[in-house]
Order: sequence, then structure tokens, then C-alpha cells
Amino acid sequence: MEELRAAVVPGMVHWASPNFFAFFPATNSAAAIAGELIASAMNPVGFTWLAAPAATEVEALALDWLAQLLRLPPAFMGRHCGAGGGVILGTTSEAMVVTLVAARDAALRRAAAGRGGSGGLLPRLAAYGTDQTHSTFSKACRVVGLDPSSVRTIPAGAETQCINAHCYLKHCMQADVDSGLVPTYVCATVGTTSTNAVDPIGAIADVAREFGAWVHVDAAYAGGACICPEFRHHLDGVERVDSISMSPHKWLLTCLDCTCLWVRDTRRLTDSLLDTNPVYLVKKDAAGEPVGSTDLKDMQVGIGHRFRGLKLWMVMRTYGASKLQQHIRSDVAMAKMFEARARDDEWFEVVVPRRFALVCFRVRPRGGMTEQEADEAGRELMARVNRTGKAFLASTVVGGRLVLRFAVGSTLQEQRHVRSAWELIKKTTADILQGAGTAGIQGPIH
Amino acid sequence: MEELRAAVVPGMVHWASPNFFAFFPATNSAAAIAGELIASAMNPVGFTWLAAPAATEVEALALDWLAQLLRLPPAFMGRHCGAGGGVILGTTSEAMVVTLVAARDAALRRAAAGRGGSGGLLPRLAAYGTDQTHSTFSKACRVVGLDPSSVRTIPAGAETQCINAHCYLKHCMQADVDSGLVPTYVCATVGTTSTNAVDPIGAIADVAREFGAWVHVDAAYAGGACICPEFRHHLDGVERVDSISMSPHKWLLTCLDCTCLWVRDTRRLTDSLLDTNPVYLVKKDAAGEPVGSTDLKDMQVGIGHRFRGLKLWMVMRTYGASKLQQHIRSDVAMAKMFEARARDDEWFEVVVPRRFALVCFRVRPRGGMTEQEADEAGRELMARVNRTGKAFLASTVVGGRLVLRFAVGSTLQEQRHVRSAWELIKKTTADILQGAGTAGIQGPIH
Repeated sequence: MEELRAAVVPGMVHWASPNFFAFFPATNSAAAIAGELIASAMNPVGFTWLAAPAATEVEALALDWLAQLLRLPPAFMGRHCGAGGGVILGTTSEAMVVTLVAARDAALRRAAAGRGGSGGLLPRLAAYGTDQTHSTFSKACRVVGLDPSSVRTIPAGAETQCINAHCYLKHCMQADVDSGLVPTYVCATVGTTSTNAVDPIGAIADVAREFGAWVHVDAAYAGGACICPEFRHHLDGVERVDSISMSPHKWLLTCLDCTCLWVRDTRRLTDSLLDTNPVYLVKKDAAGEPVGSTDLKDMQVGIGHRFRGLKLWMVMRTYGASKLQQHIRSDVAMAKMFEARARDDEWFEVVVPRRFALVCFRVRPRGGMTEQEADEAGRELMARVNRTGKAFLASTVVGGRLVLRFAVGSTLQEQRHVRSAWELIKKTTADILQGAGTAGIQGPIH
Repeated sequence: MEELRAAVVPGMVHWASPNFFAFFPATNSAAAIAGELIASAMNPVGFTWLAAPAATEVEALALDWLAQLLRLPPAFMGRHCGAGGGVILGTTSEAMVVTLVAARDAALRRAAAGRGGSGGLLPRLAAYGTDQTHSTFSKACRVVGLDPSSVRTIPAGAETQCINAHCYLKHCMQADVDSGLVPTYVCATVGTTSTNAVDPIGAIADVAREFGAWVHVDAAYAGGACICPEFRHHLDGVERVDSISMSPHKWLLTCLDCTCLWVRDTRRLTDSLLDTNPVYLVKKDAAGEPVGSTDLKDMQVGIGHRFRGLKLWMVMRTYGASKLQQHIRSDVAMAKMFEARARDDEWFEVVVPRRFALVCFRVRPRGGMTEQEADEAGRELMARVNRTGKAFLASTVVGGRLVLRFAVGSTLQEQRHVRSAWELIKKTTADILQGAGTAGIQGPIH
């Protein structure tokens, strides 16, 4: 413990600090940490139902509860209808990989049935995202063997930063079909990493259906907000998609890792990911009858499976819907406060409408300052603020311009931390613009 | 906590119980649990070096220490030579997927350079395992888009349960080349799941080199034993392979999940898995210079990365090489004790030589009993023993015959638990063979 304090802690970036406003917050709670602790001590390997029945059941229960909070259609709930359900994975990327594999194999089977063989068809399967979709999507496409040239990047609208499904997506899919490609998978994002833009899920699903493509919704961060009725409309249309993932380790007080994936039909996953069940992993009871739910190993890339469901179960059971909603609303209120200050301040502009708890702002070009100089001032502002160690910001680029990201929501954050950060930002900007001026700006930091 | 005790705990299979002899043990320790607890509380998202420098550095350090314990060649150590290094993943399957992707893309690039394009070549890449390789290997091959018909299953020797590289592997690869396939990847296993067989790594590497195929060593379980000099010879030849993975969450007292992957050249991973580095993830210091080590996100499927290195660092720092070796040796001694009793007993036979802490035994067909009846007696023995709740065994099939697996090594196990299990097995067998006889045997349990 002495070495830990002396050698490790000083080299950390403290994601748990209330002065952390970079990336997205990794929220946490006593219930989640206790859940992780107990899971680590029990240490079951829940690859099959038989290997740890309660581990599988708790995971299925937690997923169903969260699906209810999100008002997902019953089709996604393992304990309601027939075929739906889900699995808790480590990252959104894994959720993309397993659904991509399922969509890929389904497309190959369909093509094979129509043409008497799927040989050589893989390079002709096309997948679709936007220039605002997380870069991990194109990486996931590469992992499952799609041809990089068949992974389409649809331009997001300049105003909305989201996709115009009926226009661009449909046009792109039709053009691909005309040139012999097979539209296979669309990734829609609810709350993009850069600016929290929201793709129109329903419209995308309608277009994709015409072409038989799988629609996956990545709601990693903003999905957390959708447990509040006032944000739920961002998921409208989800009843027509094939799968959706969101990560309670981002905004729902559950420590890493916990990415929930729901699919309308788990058989579409297990068709591709069923492990061949060697003798030591078969699932039969003493009478030789199959027992238990779908084995978790058959809905993921690996075999071993940590007991991630426990912490999510404990978070929901401990705090309940109302406390979780209150937590989201408190973060959003703090972000609104920061947004109002930035919007009303002569030195700043808010670049895109704030939807959740992320404020995207920049130095406003004024008094003869060029856009380029405003970008430079923003870079210098971030560098100086981050060097103080009293607040940590990140940046992105929107429409070619540098934009600062102020992400509220670190678990210990209170209004006073947001106010202090605002004052630090304001004072530092004053130093830059009134003091040394842009002439004093040093090299960029990102 | 009350609900946990009432509703979850009774439904668990207690992997931490000293009476657990099924599958492979998931060993654990106070240091590992403390490490997981602290990592959960700090909760950094170590996707890039900049996002949590100490998280990346501790992981690299822990991997290097473990590589030293295993006497891996310096080429695999990130802090020694230039290009080597590793990453801690969740499962062996992920280690297979990332190395398969790297090998796949390298083969496609080579083929493209030689033929002016890689189009359509993917279905012709061939990968090789044996009928004793874990089934997750063929699943990993499917995930990365290899054609299932190009994933070869080499028959393992009936005696050794391992591959004859110079004969079968070489012959199979040559035949594939002759028919236009491209040998791309070989998975060698040190300690197969079924019987702990060990493939000859050096011989496989020599053959694979002739064909330019990537060799990966899966030492998930038995790699743990190789920290003891008396077992290290099982890794002979590792200096000629491309990558090796082993899981301290199996035998090195580190709770789930912790699979260590080392590669000779990390650039071969990052060539395929480099995330495109959106603006919010670039790694430059205030002067715009690149900083830090390889980002962990670029050696794995996902982006988010738990602080898994901490628990492994704490396990090694707390117990040291000698205590870890002592733990392995104590388990092996207990397995030897069980093996001797089974071998010397008229009712049992030991089916394959015990190499580590797994004993594969079965009821010996005697006194007019057929092989089939011996299998049935074994099934009934396992069913009755498992129903007592006083010991938990698993089974496998070797050479068409049912074999019981007695895996020693659950963390709390002592000689008395092994003795009790032996006595229970002995008494139950007596009941079956002398009492009700095989006529009383009920349905099979696996």
C-alpha cells in the first residue's frame, strides 16, 4: 500500500476527482464498488448457466430491470417474451463486434441461399456510420473482416451533427446495392462522443429495413439519461432496431466495466457465437435434459465471463429508479448552469445545443480576432487550465474549429466544482485575451 | 446484503470452495481482491497513456515481471527491447482474436504485394489447431472472418494428445498451399483443457516459419506452472513464436479477469488495431510532441480498458516469486497424491500422464465389465459425488471413453480436502460397483 501511494497514485489521472470534466465521466458508487468486491471474492466463471446459475440469472435480471427503466420494448427482455435478451460485456466495441458478426453471418447466409454459395461475398458486405460515429465502429468492422472500403461514412448534418436517414443513408445504400454491395449493418448513435448528437433511430430503422440491414444503437453515454422520461424521446424508434447497447459504467454509477447489450433475438447472436460445447461444457441435468438459460459464453467473443451483473443489480437495488434519475438530473442541471454562463459571456460561444451534461464551447472570435486565432486561444486556454491541476478539459473539432468539451458528471461533482471551474476558465481566458494576448500562445495541446 | 445472501448466494456454484475440483480452478488471493477493489474505486479508463499514465505503466511493468518469471525471451518485454510488449485482456479468446486479426491482415498484405491486390483472399487464409485445442479457437477464427472450412483440425496423437508438428502439421500446411490456401496462423496449446497435453512449441514454430504462419501459444492454465523451473521446459521454443497468452486468473491467485498477452512486435497488433485517434484521444504533450507508451486501446478490440494491471502487480509484489512457486508446487503435490491413489487402486485407472495439477482418471473395466459399462459407472460416480455437494468434478472424453477430471488448486484447498474427496469417490464407487451395481445406474450427467 505504501508503494501504491508513492509510485502509482501520483501517476494517475484521477477520473474520480470532482474537477474532472474531460472525456465522459466514469461514474461510480458505493453499491457498485461493493458489488465488484463481492464478485471478485466469489470469483465465479459464469461461462455457462450450469457453471454459476445465479451469476447468469442475476445478469439477466439486471438487464431486464434496466430495460424496463429505459422503457425498451418487451422484445428485448429475456424474461418477458421468447427470443430477446442480452449480455453484459466489457466495452461498446465488443457489443459492436458481436452484433456485426451476427449481421455479417446472417447476410452471408441470405446471400448464399439466393445464389448457391457465399464464397467471396464477405468483401461485398457494407456497413454504415457517420463522421460522428465513434472511431471504434470502423475498427470493429475491420476486426470482423469487413472490407474497409465497404465501411461507409455518411456525412452528418452541419447543424445537427446527426444523420439524415431518408436522404443520405437511403441514397448511399441504394447506390451500394446498385454497385453489387450488400447493406448489412447500420450503427446509429444516441449521444455522440464529440458533441452528444443524436441520430434519428426510427428513420434509420425504416430505411435499413428496406435493405434488410441490421440496425444497432450505440447509446453508451446518453442512454443513461434515457431512464428519465424527459430524455426518453431520444430512443424513439428503438422498437424497430435489432440491438442496442449502453454502458452504465459511464453515467449510471457502475464502475468499469459494464456495457449492456440487448438484442431482439438472442438466437441471431448464438447462431454465430455458439461455442461448440466440448464435453466439459455441456449443459444437461442429471436426467440428460438441457437446463438453464442461454449460456452467456454464446453471446460474446470469449468463454470466461466475470460476474458483472452483480454490481449492476446492486446499484439498481440500492438506489432505485428515483435516485438514479435524480443523479442524472442533477448533472444536467449543473451542465445547464455552465452552458448559461458560457452562452451569456461575451468571450465564449456554445457551439452545439447541449442535450445532456456535455457543453461544447469555444472562444468567440471578436474584436478583429480570426477564427484561427480563436482556435489558438481555445487551445491555450485548455493547456493552461489543465496545467493548474484544478480542472481537466478535453477538446474536439466541429466544423473544422477547435471546440472545448466540458463534461459534467464525475460522481463527486457538486455545483461548487462547476462554479470554480467556470471561474478558472474565465480568469485564464482573461489572462490570455487581455494579458499576453494571442501572441503569447505556446504550442497546442489536445 | 440480505437479499444477496438469501437470493444470490444459494444459487451460486462456489468456485472458491476447497471442494471444487471441476473445470480449472479460478484461484484468488487477498492481494488480488484488494487490487480489484482499489482499481474499482479509482476507476480510471486507461484507453490511452495520457488518460491514466500510471495505469498503462503498471500494466506494462506487471507484464514484464511475469515475463521474467516465465523466462520469456527479452523480445517479449516492453521495457527491454524495442518492439515487444503486451496487454492484459479479459479472456484467452480475446488474445486469439487480436493476434488472429494481426496475422490475417499481415497475410493479406503479403498476398496483395505479391499479386497486386488482396481482394477475395480472406476465404483462403488457413488456421491450424488440433482436436484438443480449445473450441474457442475455432470461434475466434469465425469472429475474424476466416472461412470455417479453412480452419484445420489436426488430429492429436492418441498417446500424447498433442500434435506431431513435423508430420501432420507440415503435411497439412503443404497440402493447403498446394490447393491455393495461405497458411496464416497456428494455435499451439500448453496444457489443453481436456487433459493438459502440451504441444511441442519449438517444432511447431519451425514448421510454421517455413510457411510464414503466425504461431500463438495458448498457455492459459499451465503457463502458471511454468514460473517454476521444473515446469519451464514446456515453454521451450517460445523464443521462436510470435505471441503467447496465459491467464493468471486461472492459477496465479489473481481474480477474474486477467489474461496476459505478449507479442514479439506490438506494431503487428497496432497495425491492425490502431484506433483512428479522434481529436479527443490524441496523445501529445503541451509542446505537441507525442508522449507515452503504446496506447492499450491499440492492442485490443475495444477502447475502454479497466485497470487490470493493478491486481497482478499487487499479487506479484505481495507474494513474490517464491510464494507463487510454492503455491504451484503445493497444488501439484496434492494432485500427485490423488494420482497415486487412483493409480494404485484396483477400481481406477489414470488415463493420461498427469503433467500439472489435473488428474484424468476413470473406472477400470474389470471382472467382465465392458468399456461401455465402465463409462456408465464413471458417469454415475460423477453424478452421485456432485449430488452430495461435498465435491464437484467435471468430465471429458479421451479416445471415445468417458474420463473424470479432478483439478486440484482451488485457493483454499488443503490435503485434507483432497483426501476427503478421494474417500468420497472411493466409497461412492464401492456403492455403485458392489451395491446396486451398474444396473442401478440412472441417466447420465456431464
